[in-house]
Amino acid sequence: MSLLAIGSVAFDDLETPFGVRERLLGGSVSYFSLSASHFHPVQVVAVVGEDFGPEHHQVFEGRPIDLSGLVRKPGLSFRWKGAYGYDLNEARTLDTQLNVFQDFHPHLPEAFRSSPYLFLGNIDPVLQLDVVRQMAQRPRWVALDTMNFWINGAREALNAVLQEVDILLVNEAEARALTQEHNLLKVYRRIQAFGPKFLVVKRGEYGAALFTPEGAFVAPAFPLEDVFDPTGAGDTFAGGFLGYLASRGRMDVETLKAAVLHGAVMASFTVEQFGTENLQNVTGSEIKGRLKAFSDMIRIDGL
Amino acid sequence: MSLLAIGSVAFDDLETPFGVRERLLGGSVSYFSLSASHFHPVQVVAVVGEDFGPEHHQVFEGRPIDLSGLVRKPGLSFRWKGAYGYDLNEARTLDTQLNVFQDFHPHLPEAFRSSPYLFLGNIDPVLQLDVVRQMAQRPRWVALDTMNFWINGAREALNAVLQEVDILLVNEAEARALTQEHNLLKVYRRIQAFGPKFLVVKRGEYGAALFTPEGAFVAPAFPLEDVFDPTGAGDTFAGGFLGYLASRGRMDVETLKAAVLHGAVMASFTVEQFGTENLQNVTGSEIKGRLKAFSDMIRIDGL
Repeated sequence: MSLLAIGSVAFDDLETPFGVRERLLGGSVSYFSLSASHFHPVQVVAVVGEDFGPEHHQVFEGRPIDLSGLVRKPGLSFRWKGAYGYDLNEARTLDTQLNVFQDFHPHLPEAFRSSPYLFLGNIDPVLQLDVVRQMAQRPRWVALDTMNFWINGAREALNAVLQEVDILLVNEAEARALTQEHNLLKVYRRIQAFGPKFLVVKRGEYGAALFTPEGAFVAPAFPLEDVFDPTGAGDTFAGGFLGYLASRGRMDVETLKAAVLHGAVMASFTVEQFGTENLQNVTGSEIKGRLKAFSDMIRIDGL
Repeated sequence: MSLLAIGSVAFDDLETPFGVRERLLGGSVSYFSLSASHFHPVQVVAVVGEDFGPEHHQVFEGRPIDLSGLVRKPGLSFRWKGAYGYDLNEARTLDTQLNVFQDFHPHLPEAFRSSPYLFLGNIDPVLQLDVVRQMAQRPRWVALDTMNFWINGAREALNAVLQEVDILLVNEAEARALTQEHNLLKVYRRIQAFGPKFLVVKRGEYGAALFTPEGAFVAPAFPLEDVFDPTGAGDTFAGGFLGYLASRGRMDVETLKAAVLHGAVMASFTVEQFGTENLQNVTGSEIKGRLKAFSDMIRIDGL
């Protein structure tokens, strides 16, 4: 009954106004699986290089994260170097070395092919579709993340895989690029025509918006005193959102709303520290405490 | 027991991707009073020119809006010309003619000086402070709006009037300019030191954030299918927020939270049409209906 996640494992070099870090463990599936594992078992399919050592393996150990789909290849792991200004909204990419990720072709271990929940991280849509085809049967739900690079450069393949997707998670600019619409309610109408029944729009410091056939739900980000490093916030949100959703086994609107809060809360922990540090150390009671504070913060009793 | 509002009445020339309008009745106090009057009686102090005719007077008639503080002066009314691009977030000012507003010096009618609730619209802080001094006694609360022009150009006078203010309503850029802080929790801490106990940060299409000594409350904007003209959205929000607050006579956190939703809902009506058209025509049951839909949209039962 695991949540199967495909994506990237990378080493990040980060520059923010609050400090510089080198070779931090990163990549979409690292943030996603660490976040989701607080709520549901996760199976990971990704590729790493020879520079991925036991100390990195250890980060995932002691958690319900199955790494038997993590392939080690000759060469170096995906390396990304980015910098943030004071507003911390947009990362400036300084360097990208795909390395072993260049030839990544996800191959699902037999044991993974019947997983009921599938998250297709942001990779080539041709590979995302191939993963769907490797599944023994159609999962209960398929969620997908993508980016402008694929929206603009591989639209046909993206359209093909979107027909298999139940939940699309993208940021605001990606949602608009995908549909050529500005207004999010119109964006959602178009997305539905592509295949996904549900749309989650990630808005960074402004939170997230959920669109369902029964209506929209808009949640702010959890207000923080100190934000150090936004890297991985979106993947952490996806992990909290989908991990909670998988743990409930339901997809009714109230469960989806609660899932948005879980995603937002997990993302709030990630951005408080560099890399995956907080995701590794945060406890279940800290998560529960912030969920309670957050739901109080957006609850209205006065009406 | 009225809500006394000081601000501008103007004629706006607007260009949006959805159309062009000339000489629409506008100005901060027009939007504010029409919005607030749906919840509480309003007294208006402003100046207009000879071009302000009976047809404009009529817009406020039949509502609990006392215009005995509306002074008619020789010359033309304040005229503003603005244009919006497709994202509708930022207005580009094409022309500003202050006209009679240039020499506006608010003089409170005797009957207005004992009003328990005071809103100081965005005018010269020297004049805002003078209005406070004209009051027979300190109002139960004083709310203030301002802009970067005064934050950068009249900081001393602004600091002086802020000491008399209970509720500061500004947009995100203004809040940051005022405090030289980016993080809104830190912004609020500084604002409190200036005088205001409560801070409302207007975030346009991202809604609003309320900061109180008991904690923060963040609300999204009411999602709309069609946004035609954002002019006056902030003043309409302030009118709904403060009009509802005055109608309750309380300032506890739950009342303030509910006031934020009232402001957001009123603003959602304003931006659906050009100028004050929707504010003039919207019915109490339409407002109640949208308040209900909005509170459903942000309510979480699944946690």
